[in-house]
Parts: sequence; structure tokens; C-alpha cells
Amino acid sequence: MREIYLDNSATTRTAEPVADAVYDMLVNCYGNPSSLYRKGLEAENRMTWARREIAALIGCEGEEVTFTSGGTEANNLAVFGVMAMGRSRGKKIVTTAYEHSSVGAAVRRLAEQGVETVCVRPDGQGHIDPEEFAAAVDENTALASFMAVNNEVGSVIPVERLTRLLRRKNPRLLVHCDAVQALGKIPVQVKKWDVDLCTVTAHKIYGPKGVGALYVRRGVTLRPRQVGGEQEKRLRPGTEASALAVGFGKAAELLSGQMQEDNRRIEEISLALRHGLWLIDGIQFNSPEDAVPAVMNISVPGIRSETMMHFLEQRGISVSSGSACSKGAKSHVLTAMGLPEGRIDSALRISVGRYNTLEDAEIFCEALSQGMKALARAR
Amino acid sequence: MREIYLDNSATTRTAEPVADAVYDMLVNCYGNPSSLYRKGLEAENRMTWARREIAALIGCEGEEVTFTSGGTEANNLAVFGVMAMGRSRGKKIVTTAYEHSSVGAAVRRLAEQGVETVCVRPDGQGHIDPEEFAAAVDENTALASFMAVNNEVGSVIPVERLTRLLRRKNPRLLVHCDAVQALGKIPVQVKKWDVDLCTVTAHKIYGPKGVGALYVRRGVTLRPRQVGGEQEKRLRPGTEASALAVGFGKAAELLSGQMQEDNRRIEEISLALRHGLWLIDGIQFNSPEDAVPAVMNISVPGIRSETMMHFLEQRGISVSSGSACSKGAKSHVLTAMGLPEGRIDSALRISVGRYNTLEDAEIFCEALSQGMKALARAR
Repeated sequence: MREIYLDNSATTRTAEPVADAVYDMLVNCYGNPSSLYRKGLEAENRMTWARREIAALIGCEGEEVTFTSGGTEANNLAVFGVMAMGRSRGKKIVTTAYEHSSVGAAVRRLAEQGVETVCVRPDGQGHIDPEEFAAAVDENTALASFMAVNNEVGSVIPVERLTRLLRRKNPRLLVHCDAVQALGKIPVQVKKWDVDLCTVTAHKIYGPKGVGALYVRRGVTLRPRQVGGEQEKRLRPGTEASALAVGFGKAAELLSGQMQEDNRRIEEISLALRHGLWLIDGIQFNSPEDAVPAVMNISVPGIRSETMMHFLEQRGISVSSGSACSKGAKSHVLTAMGLPEGRIDSALRISVGRYNTLEDAEIFCEALSQGMKALARAR
Repeated sequence: MREIYLDNSATTRTAEPVADAVYDMLVNCYGNPSSLYRKGLEAENRMTWARREIAALIGCEGEEVTFTSGGTEANNLAVFGVMAMGRSRGKKIVTTAYEHSSVGAAVRRLAEQGVETVCVRPDGQGHIDPEEFAAAVDENTALASFMAVNNEVGSVIPVERLTRLLRRKNPRLLVHCDAVQALGKIPVQVKKWDVDLCTVTAHKIYGPKGVGALYVRRGVTLRPRQVGGEQEKRLRPGTEASALAVGFGKAAELLSGQMQEDNRRIEEISLALRHGLWLIDGIQFNSPEDAVPAVMNISVPGIRSETMMHFLEQRGISVSSGSACSKGAKSHVLTAMGLPEGRIDSALRISVGRYNTLEDAEIFCEALSQGMKALARAR
């Protein structure tokens, strides 16, 4: 059976040149990057190369890139790291109601500790209103944190416009952008965006799971979450995951070269998907029209997400009902958007990636249509 | 030039079957282990396999193994995780003065926050007296944390005897053992040792850097450090580094099969090293007689560590002056042992591993002897 993987927002298959680079690091360039002899320096140099590739991709300097174990750690480091810097900057956080759980849970933990938090709600299309977000920021706000592209519906925040509004409201504010789902789908340009902190991760761009990075604008200081050795300028101690970091660098290099071509193809597949789905009676689109083409969230009235996922899976098709991190729990994103319960319970996220084909879109639409008939009969 | 790597306590070369397993996960079994379809379950099943291999190696159940990004994160999780559980268990920590920085710095941070801490000092041989350690524990002590094998001198704590004494002093105490350097060198048996928490990491046993694990005894609850999704039973959220976890599992499986043979050979090489070093006038041994054979710490009077390291490196030999995590800073381990400054400044750690040969020992001793002559002349 042909395998059709349409859950690229959950994670992606590692590109072969990336896996080769990881393998080579493990077996040949295995020195500890913090060791002071040649074998250590070789590993450190390769990490520096990786840092620069990632920096080039997001428009900053290599030194502004701190490696972490992934997006969750980077998001936690940004949120807790800013808020632990003391009261000089204020005590309030402004964020949205549909952030990834690694920001959402961090903000909730801080709220328990007495930090004032405001969670701006998206509209029914999944859009955050920049004016409304900025209005929530005041003199006492230390941190604004928002995702550039939502992981479940693919809606995009106009980051540059938002940060301009934010800076006007409070010039001392630190701005964190979770660009985990944005990377590779829209241009992530931290300087142009004028953000202070930005989270990216490798496994959404055909790199390995277990490595992410936090962009920290030069001059911005954070309190480290992890304590120990001297690694990553003490901001993130622990023996460097050098093979993964280099894999991330390789994935960034590949992406730089083929993002345009990837996105042209993904858009084509996405269009085919949309056309196919339009022809099926009753499909509801939860993603806005201007979402990134790679992510399409739909509801299939009357058929629970898990039931349809199971039907599709038996035909070799992988899609999800929402974020993999929430393991099938009711989507907090669609809930925040105010969608009715039935629509949330029947939601599917189809996310297209580099390795998909037009045929995948056709097969998916055909299988979905069959599923709707078969499962409706079964009720 | 033949490459002689004698810094296996800093990190090890990844075994080829491990690198193969990592590669296969990246390219073929790339599903998100938290995804609910087959591709996710396949990845989750392989992680479960890895968990069991690690559990089998350290004598516990797979469910008691929580994956982390490495030893530093696992140590931080143990120390902060216990102390954040509230005052029900007391407020004091007892540890040693020569722990790895990931325990040492965590304890210092807690001390800044008002936690009472006692750091038991090793003697001049690098031994911690179990009676003295236990005497520092009282009714108010929440956590005892100690390393089984010291990373710089290779001295061994009699864990089983120590925990027996500790339990007698305070039955509610939680006991954490940092077994990062012990794994593979001595039998790590968490149930026999009767510890509640135990840290291990892959890259010291020919696995990849970037993955470690914390054994958490069933029934022991910790406050998570990282917050976000549902992964690792919420104790350690974040997309699972599935390829690395499986690599760790493979390294554990290999180690289980060949630990005896590895250690027989390492002991032989270690003996050859010791004999060779005895023949060189003036070498001082900082490791105790009963240290693990894999780690040998010596001082070369009058020649600074970095100078000798540089000399050896030019001959293809990699050794270190201490922990890679401290990047050449003065050894806090030798300082805690009370060694004189000159001896600390001239210390070298030679650490033997699976891929070393008897010839490596001979070449090292010969080069060290040459170095002593050449560098003494140069002064």
C-alpha cells in the first residue's frame, strides 16, 4: 500500500542529506565540542557552521542562535527566561489564546505565581487582530509572545505590523515569536520582524527531532532554565547535541536552497486538495482563506475525527485531528476560535510537505469521500 | 597520524550499529511518537523498546525511564523537581562538594533561594565517607544527591551502603544518584542500590549526544521543569527525540552484551597505562587505587595541563585536563579533594574506552615521557 503522509505539521521525514550529516557527526566527528583539543574544535566548528546556516535562514548572526532540545524548550526558555529577570521590566505577559502548549502552559504556570496574563482571542477564522493585541500591552508588560503561523489552522499573524504597534505602546517590552510552524512556510526574518526572541525547530523542516533553537537578539539577557556547564554561553548548559545541531544546520541549508520550489509545489498540491474538498458535500473549512497553503483544517460533519483518521489510516493515509503534542485531546485552538463543538470533534488537519505529490491530494480526497459514505452508513 | 582518543569520559564515539539505528529512525520511522496513527505508533513502539533496553541495563521497569536531552537536564530535573514539590518533605539538600556542575549549579541556585545545603567533601583520594554523608542528613532533608563514579578521578561511592545509612536517618528522604560516569563502568542497579532517582546518558556509552534519561522510581512524583504537551507522562514535554532515544536503546543493548568484555580489555589497557606511568619519574596519581580502571587522573609536576595537552594533541593524542563541561576552568573536583594548586594546574585525565588498544597506552606513555623532557627543556 502506498503511504501518504499528510501530517507534516506534526513532524517531517528527515531529508537524506541531513541524516547523512547526522551519521557522519556521530561516527567521525564525535568529539565533545567543549573539549579543547582538535577533535573537540572540529565538532565546535561544525556547530558554528550550523549556527550560521540557521542564522542565514532567519536573518540574524550565528552568535544570536542558541541551540535547545527543541521548540518546547526554546519556548519555555523565552517565556520563563524573560519573566525571571526580575521586576525591572514589569510583570505582565500578553499572549494569545491559541499558542502552542509550550507557551500556553508556561504562561499558566506564571499566572499561578501571580504574573498578570492576557490571552488575546483569535476570531472565528483564526486571525489575531494586531490592534487588539497591542491594546492589551501596557507600561507594566514585560513580554509579548505570539506564534507567527498557527500550528492547527495555518493562520498567519502580520508580525512586522504587530511589533511596530507593540513598540509604540511600550518600548521596553520584549517580543517573542514562536516561528516553529512558520519556518519554511513564510519568510522568517527576525530583524525585519523586529522581535527579540524567536523559536524555531529542526523537525518541522526535514531535520531531526530533538533539536531546536532560540534566537536571542544581541544585548537581550535571559535567566537560563538549565544550569550546569559553560555550553551555549551558559544560557543552555549540557553537552551539545552536536550531531543534531549539524543536522539542523544541514536542513536549514537545504531549505534555503529549495524553499521557493517547495512552496510552489505545496501550493499546487494545496490547491488540488481544496478543489477536491470543495467537490465533497458538507466539508467545512476551519482554516482561513489566507492561511499558509501547507496547513488545511477541515471538519467532516457528523464523523468524529478519530473515526475518520482510523478509516484513512487503513488506506495508508496519515492526517491528524490537531497537535500531536496534545495526543487527541479536544483542540484548544478551534475552541479559542469559538467553533461549535460538533465542528471541533470532527476536525482534521491536513498538512502538506516537500515529499507530497499531486496524486496524494487526489487519493486523499477520494478516500475522504469514501469514508464519509461508509461511515455515514455505519451510523 | 594515528588518532588516539583517550577522553572517553568527555564523550565517546557513537557505535556504528547505534548510528545505523539513528539513521533508520530519521529516514524511515519518522512519525511523531505522539501521533495516533500507525506511523506514530511505530515510532512510539521503538521508543518503548529503547526504554526497556535502558531499564534492563539499570535494573528497573521501562515505565520508570523518562527520556531527557541529556545528563544535565536529568540532573536538573531530579534536583529542582524534588525541591519544587513543596515543604512536605523538608527543605534541606545534602550532596557532595565534587558533583558535576549540573547538580552543583542547581544546588547553588536553590541555596540562593534559601534552601539549606550541605556539601560533603571528599578526602584527598577522592572518596566520600558514607558515614559522614549520612550524618549530614536530618529530619528536614528532602534530597540526597551524589554521583556513583566521579567524572574526573573515577572514585566510586558504595551506593548500596550509603543509601542504607540514609534510609535509616530519614525514611522519607529522596535519594538521587548521578550515574552518568558509572554506566558501563560498574553495574548500575537502581533497585539494588535503593535509589529513587538516577541519571544516565547515552553519549558516555557509545550512544549519541543529546539524549539522557532519568530513572524515577514508581510512586515518586516530581514537578516537571519543562511544560507543554503530554509527552513522557507530562514529566518532560516536547516532541520526543525518537531517533536519539532509539540510539540510546541500541547503545544500552550493545553494552549489556559486551560490558564484561569491554571492561576486561579496559582493565588490561589501564594496567598497561599505570605500569607505563610508574616508569616515568615524577608522575603523581590523583585517582585512588580503587578507581574505575577507565579513568586515570595524574599530575605532571611543573607542566601546565594545557601545555601538555597541546604537546600530546600534536601527536594525535586527545586527553583532557578535567570535565569538558567546564572548558578548561580550574578543576573543582581536585580543589575539593584539597590537592595543592600546582598539582591541580598540571592535572591530566586519561579515560579509556571500548575502542582503545594496548598500543594506545604504550604510545601515550611514550609521548608523555617525551613531552616531559621537551617541555622541561623549554622552560
